[in-house]
Amino acid sequence: MAEPFIQRLCLIGVGLIGGSLARALREAGAVGEIVGCARHQESLDAALELGVIDRAEGDPAMAVRGADVVVLAVPVGESRAVLERIRDHLAQDAILTDVGSTKGSVVAAAREVFGQLPSRFVPAHPIAGTEQSGVGASFAELFRGRRVILTPDEHTDAEALATVRRMWEACGAQVVETSVAHHDAVLAATSHLPHMLAYVLVDSLARRDDREEVFAFAAGGFRDFTRIASSNPAMWHDICFANRDELLRVTERFRDDLGRLAEAIRKGDGGYLRETFERAKQARDQWCESHGDDANACE
Amino acid sequence: MAEPFIQRLCLIGVGLIGGSLARALREAGAVGEIVGCARHQESLDAALELGVIDRAEGDPAMAVRGADVVVLAVPVGESRAVLERIRDHLAQDAILTDVGSTKGSVVAAAREVFGQLPSRFVPAHPIAGTEQSGVGASFAELFRGRRVILTPDEHTDAEALATVRRMWEACGAQVVETSVAHHDAVLAATSHLPHMLAYVLVDSLARRDDREEVFAFAAGGFRDFTRIASSNPAMWHDICFANRDELLRVTERFRDDLGRLAEAIRKGDGGYLRETFERAKQARDQWCESHGDDANACE
Repeated sequence: MAEPFIQRLCLIGVGLIGGSLARALREAGAVGEIVGCARHQESLDAALELGVIDRAEGDPAMAVRGADVVVLAVPVGESRAVLERIRDHLAQDAILTDVGSTKGSVVAAAREVFGQLPSRFVPAHPIAGTEQSGVGASFAELFRGRRVILTPDEHTDAEALATVRRMWEACGAQVVETSVAHHDAVLAATSHLPHMLAYVLVDSLARRDDREEVFAFAAGGFRDFTRIASSNPAMWHDICFANRDELLRVTERFRDDLGRLAEAIRKGDGGYLRETFERAKQARDQWCESHGDDANACE
Repeated sequence: MAEPFIQRLCLIGVGLIGGSLARALREAGAVGEIVGCARHQESLDAALELGVIDRAEGDPAMAVRGADVVVLAVPVGESRAVLERIRDHLAQDAILTDVGSTKGSVVAAAREVFGQLPSRFVPAHPIAGTEQSGVGASFAELFRGRRVILTPDEHTDAEALATVRRMWEACGAQVVETSVAHHDAVLAATSHLPHMLAYVLVDSLARRDDREEVFAFAAGGFRDFTRIASSNPAMWHDICFANRDELLRVTERFRDDLGRLAEAIRKGDGGYLRETFERAKQARDQWCESHGDDANACE
């Protein structure tokens, strides 16, 4: 068990991600006290009862007082309002970080609220989650073996960056760094677009007259394919607008690609189908192979 | 252990589905001898070595001789050629059935080859599978708790229908009946379209210049979403053409729905997003709840 390197952690938002972070840091012995803040009293009560947090505060301004590390773990659309509320109450040397699925919007919000991006703000995004939400679904192992992407810039304080990196490594995550723009472009393609596809597909089936039979005939492939359509709608609402430009770009590209496949089916162009399917299968199989322990999940 | 009600089963095709059917029927004591037929000698060798089949035949015409039940378990595009080859060699009262993912194309092939749909041909589709293929991936439990759809018509022989039903029930499956047209329309939406979406998404990422980073940042949701993109390309090539009209119809509808979502994101119509996501989440959560044992897979 390590010596705690975070004396007081303040979590704004105690859902799946915030709760899992708290559990993981506690298990690692990395943290002294954990203060949780949430809009809904039930979330705070649940977090206290589960022992995920030590102390609950309803007001972000109160919650951040004296905390050496403050983590924003709210839907990205709420970042700006929270930053405004805590701005004048952060401890002198407090390190600020977040867990948002989009980085451009959070960085922009911080710039607006602070006038410039605070050097001790380290934008972060743990690439982990389940389709569940809420502190009740949180667990300490969520980040183990997962990637956490940090998007510092040239003004980011080295010590703040090192602490945030250490925090995630204590959770068993693998920390990488990239630019804000690149993060948002890549995540649009690998995460945001897939969520749109799953939501639209399930919704499209749910609106059919024969939906009962449709769902009755759905099987295992459908279950896995649509798992992400059970994700939190409010959170994904925010992500869509926060990463609007990149998401629209990859969505248009996808619609074009799908249209080309449909055209090939219409024309009887079997070569196009085989090439597309084979390239896709090969890419995915390779990805599974290169993901070590996770490979079983591909079986 | 039941008395064998199939004396000699002939399997044309010993891949994931054919192999799993053989294993399940053997475990249930439902079958006497199992004759396997495949184009590639390695498949037959593997099937023999694994004890999945008792006897191997390279020629379908030889394989079906004296079999009371003949199961076509080949990619749907090969149905016609196989039916032509076996037509004059089937035993007098042989029951013929298949496992194809599309029913209209297989029924049409049988009509062309036999002049009319043989009364002892029972079109069938087990809604089960994994993204793996080949007899090495087969297992007896594949069909347990899964649905098998039969699409008989008014001329289908009652005894043949009862035997095929009994065969699948012996594998632990739940057998339902519907029309050929309805089967193909529903499966286009719940299975064929999702496979296209997964293939196109992965292929689209694989063709990016930054594909290495893209795949490096992909996580669990991506893994599940794209699992079906690891499916057998040749099989899916056949399915696309075999169910072309229905697949093109649902694909166009999906492209329109996705376009409407993109437009809502562009316009900032948050209500549209929330409604779509919530309807989808609710439909999927309900589906998971109503699927009993499988519910764990949704966790």
